[in-house]
Amino acid sequence: MELPSKLLEKAVSEISQLPGIGKRTALRLALHLLKQPEDQTQMLSNALTSLRENVKYCKSCYNISDNEICEICSNPNRDESIICVVEDVRDVMAIESTGIFNGLYHVLGGKINPIEGIGPSQLNISTLVDKINLGEVREIIFALSSTMEGDTTNFYIYKQIKDSKIKTSTIARGIAVGDELEYADEVTLGRSLINRIPYENGLKI
Amino acid sequence: MELPSKLLEKAVSEISQLPGIGKRTALRLALHLLKQPEDQTQMLSNALTSLRENVKYCKSCYNISDNEICEICSNPNRDESIICVVEDVRDVMAIESTGIFNGLYHVLGGKINPIEGIGPSQLNISTLVDKINLGEVREIIFALSSTMEGDTTNFYIYKQIKDSKIKTSTIARGIAVGDELEYADEVTLGRSLINRIPYENGLKI
Ligand SMILES: [Zn+2]
Ligand SMILES: [Zn+2]
Repeated sequence: MELPSKLLEKAVSEISQLPGIGKRTALRLALHLLKQPEDQTQMLSNALTSLRENVKYCKSCYNISDNEICEICSNPNRDESIICVVEDVRDVMAIESTGIFNGLYHVLGGKINPIEGIGPSQLNISTLVDKINLGEVREIIFALSSTMEGDTTNFYIYKQIKDSKIKTSTIARGIAVGDELEYADEVTLGRSLINRIPYENGLKI
Repeated sequence: MELPSKLLEKAVSEISQLPGIGKRTALRLALHLLKQPEDQTQMLSNALTSLRENVKYCKSCYNISDNEICEICSNPNRDESIICVVEDVRDVMAIESTGIFNGLYHVLGGKINPIEGIGPSQLNISTLVDKINLGEVREIIFALSSTMEGDTTNFYIYKQIKDSKIKTSTIARGIAVGDELEYADEVTLGRSLINRIPYENGLKI
């Protein structure tokens, strides 16, 4: 695909660096911006630059935040003794949207992944261990994805904190609410059986 | 979906103005940029702003170009007497990649679409008519998409130029090369029959 202009080529090449966006989509987006008023492109550029330059992370849980301490950590109604360990900001948002969880979070910023060269020191793990050593936390919930990297990360953290005798759990895996049993894959169905729970109403955490 | 930061909210809202990109994808893209070095965001922003501010259109065919007259229009080996009328730059690129066409283009910049408020005066139509009135062009090929808007646009232009007695054609529609007849939709198969051509080798245009 040969582009008729170097400016267009440069824009397409930069846009297609984004994950999941190929050259063809990048070209469509660039041509779209050319049809819109100039300030739409300006506002997009400014928003991206401003986010990248001025983003702050909560000093306590590493969630993205406009303040030093995020709204969740600074909310006096939340239970500080229970911490849910997640990979990134999207996981915080997903769990918050359930309305079930009233504890705090700890955002690791990724998972241990030797192949991509991500070790424990590049993640927010030592600060989590420090928090636990202060003795105020009574439960840790691991909510990482159930991949090899997720399991490795859970296990690495578990080894660091197991002497504290703190309660640890991982979120249950199983068949989605409303799904038919016959269409579930067998690993998920097996997990649903193993993780069976007493037949009673759920409670807020 | 409540976002934990106004900066992030602004970026997600601007990204999701792009066609085909929802809030969820926009968030994924914003968080991706946050994980990359700062200069990647800077280069993306700069490329978009620079494209939008400095883009030039060929004074003759309205293709995007880095110069006043594009490389196609200024190529002395191309046949100026035959003009292919297309909707946008992507169509020029698609036809160029066939290697079949050796004439020039005329980029309309859209199609007549009363519902979206796009009339003939917002498209590069009058300059096409002027070109034809100069008497140097012997054939016009309409290569707009075969939608109601495409047909309306073809017909509008045709009415303006029909007194010139110039040769006009539209690109053939039919079954794609390599496709099985039985899987083709009937409108396309019908067009293939109506547009049947003498059994001989194709020639360069
Ligand atoms: Zn926080
Ligand atoms: Zn040109």
